[in-house]
Amino acid sequence: MTESVAIREVGLRDGLQSIATFMSTGDKKEWIARSVAAGLSEIEVCSFVPEKYLPQFSDAAEVAAYAGLRRDFVAVALVPNVRGAQRALESGIDKLVCITSATESFSRANLRRSKAESLAEIEEIARLRDRAAASGPRVIIQAGISVCFGCPFEGKVDDDDVCTAAHAAVGAGADEISLADTSGYGEPRQVGRIFRRLMCEMPQVPLAAHFHDTRGLGLANVLAALQAGVRSFDASLGGLGGCPNSPGATGNVATEDLVFMLEAMGFETGIDLEQLLGVRRFLTAALPDVAMSGHIAAAGPPKGFMQR
Amino acid sequence: MTESVAIREVGLRDGLQSIATFMSTGDKKEWIARSVAAGLSEIEVCSFVPEKYLPQFSDAAEVAAYAGLRRDFVAVALVPNVRGAQRALESGIDKLVCITSATESFSRANLRRSKAESLAEIEEIARLRDRAAASGPRVIIQAGISVCFGCPFEGKVDDDDVCTAAHAAVGAGADEISLADTSGYGEPRQVGRIFRRLMCEMPQVPLAAHFHDTRGLGLANVLAALQAGVRSFDASLGGLGGCPNSPGATGNVATEDLVFMLEAMGFETGIDLEQLLGVRRFLTAALPDVAMSGHIAAAGPPKGFMQR
Repeated sequence: MTESVAIREVGLRDGLQSIATFMSTGDKKEWIARSVAAGLSEIEVCSFVPEKYLPQFSDAAEVAAYAGLRRDFVAVALVPNVRGAQRALESGIDKLVCITSATESFSRANLRRSKAESLAEIEEIARLRDRAAASGPRVIIQAGISVCFGCPFEGKVDDDDVCTAAHAAVGAGADEISLADTSGYGEPRQVGRIFRRLMCEMPQVPLAAHFHDTRGLGLANVLAALQAGVRSFDASLGGLGGCPNSPGATGNVATEDLVFMLEAMGFETGIDLEQLLGVRRFLTAALPDVAMSGHIAAAGPPKGFMQR
Repeated sequence: MTESVAIREVGLRDGLQSIATFMSTGDKKEWIARSVAAGLSEIEVCSFVPEKYLPQFSDAAEVAAYAGLRRDFVAVALVPNVRGAQRALESGIDKLVCITSATESFSRANLRRSKAESLAEIEEIARLRDRAAASGPRVIIQAGISVCFGCPFEGKVDDDDVCTAAHAAVGAGADEISLADTSGYGEPRQVGRIFRRLMCEMPQVPLAAHFHDTRGLGLANVLAALQAGVRSFDASLGGLGGCPNSPGATGNVATEDLVFMLEAMGFETGIDLEQLLGVRRFLTAALPDVAMSGHIAAAGPPKGFMQR
């Protein structure tokens, strides 16, 4: 029996977040539709961040409503606060990603609030979700914990701080936890160590990994997390995105490279690589001025590579 | 106590091999000198392939003589045949890399001889080496086994064929074995499986890994080999090189990214990353028209990253 690994496309949120060019709402919908056709079963489609901060997401409500209506994949939206969560819940989305942080400095820089305040916000979002669940489906809350493997302000992050943040987020009402290597600081030993520890400490909580490939260790970190038992990974088509502090640095792990690695290793992703490369070509045409990364698009799958 | 991992720079051979621009002999020597200053302790400096096939190596004898005279690092040359080995031995080099292949088709396409013929050639080179050792230092022979993890002609390669080739090369006189993912077909499970098997089957033979990053799995494959116990890896500065069959595809694992991963994991490489990035800047200036890959040069080492 083949073991499955879930890949969540986050290019529409984490990728576009750092792209100045506004992608049209129609292109966003087409990207979603093509991704679903290629086999993606979970897509983070937008961020309900205030428009004044990120004009890229001024159409978040429309994109989320489109995604929520489709019912053929898990539609996810990032919500930075209660107001965003309210809007997301109204849109019919399936899953909310709420953000907390492993370090105090990053929390204040990224969310303009302390870690404690971010947890209080998640608590309030969870109450909102619970009330909405009385008259509709129960929306899942995933807490994304930023800078788990290193922080651009504080450098090294203690394992204890990551695990404390994860427990606190579950205490605040999160159903799932995602550990994020926001700035591409992680290395495989640390990644394996922290995930193994959390797997023991909270065996009932689904754990996911969100790796940036800033320093080229994205797939090696995926391997370490896989070995620790993680079966859920974020990725961005064409490695779309970047790191605002590092010109030339790449964004998330490229979805197509991750699909290739997992399928080559014998895992089942449910994603058709050839079709996904077609989606990448669509994306390249939709964003002609945006550099993409990733290897498999240039090299092509190897001779004899057959997906299940 | 910190565990050491050896990195061999192969950019001067495997990198330059696919670069049409001739790099001047002076620049080659300077690349070597700067690499040694940055802490590299083994460098593959040239190939003694006939000049008509690869004009890049028309100065092989001069480069090898310079490298062999220095005595402050292990100087390595690739030798495709007995004639090349003779020239290499005369140059004063420390180690010869002889090539055999895991598949018959690749052997014939790459070396214009069968696997059996390539092994007979290694036997003859070993006899030549033994005779030379009577009146000088004993030069080491490493057998590099091509396409161990997949073949551009035959696709999937059987583990047995790789192990058979490794045993045969040792039987022919090789002191060390390097398994090469020549075309970037390898995946971590297979890499770990084959290296673990050879570690058991030939515990007395030093094993090394040579990974191309053609499909982005280079560092993940390094991680799998590390976990299997391999402590010796080839890499090419700036990922110099490529894959003649895949335009846009990258070459070997980038030396600087490999150093970063290993040091971040707590291994000791003996290489100063900042100084190595300086060598990369020299290389970029020396080969202005050649695209390089690698992540750490763009992103920089993370805040708080300290080498021992």
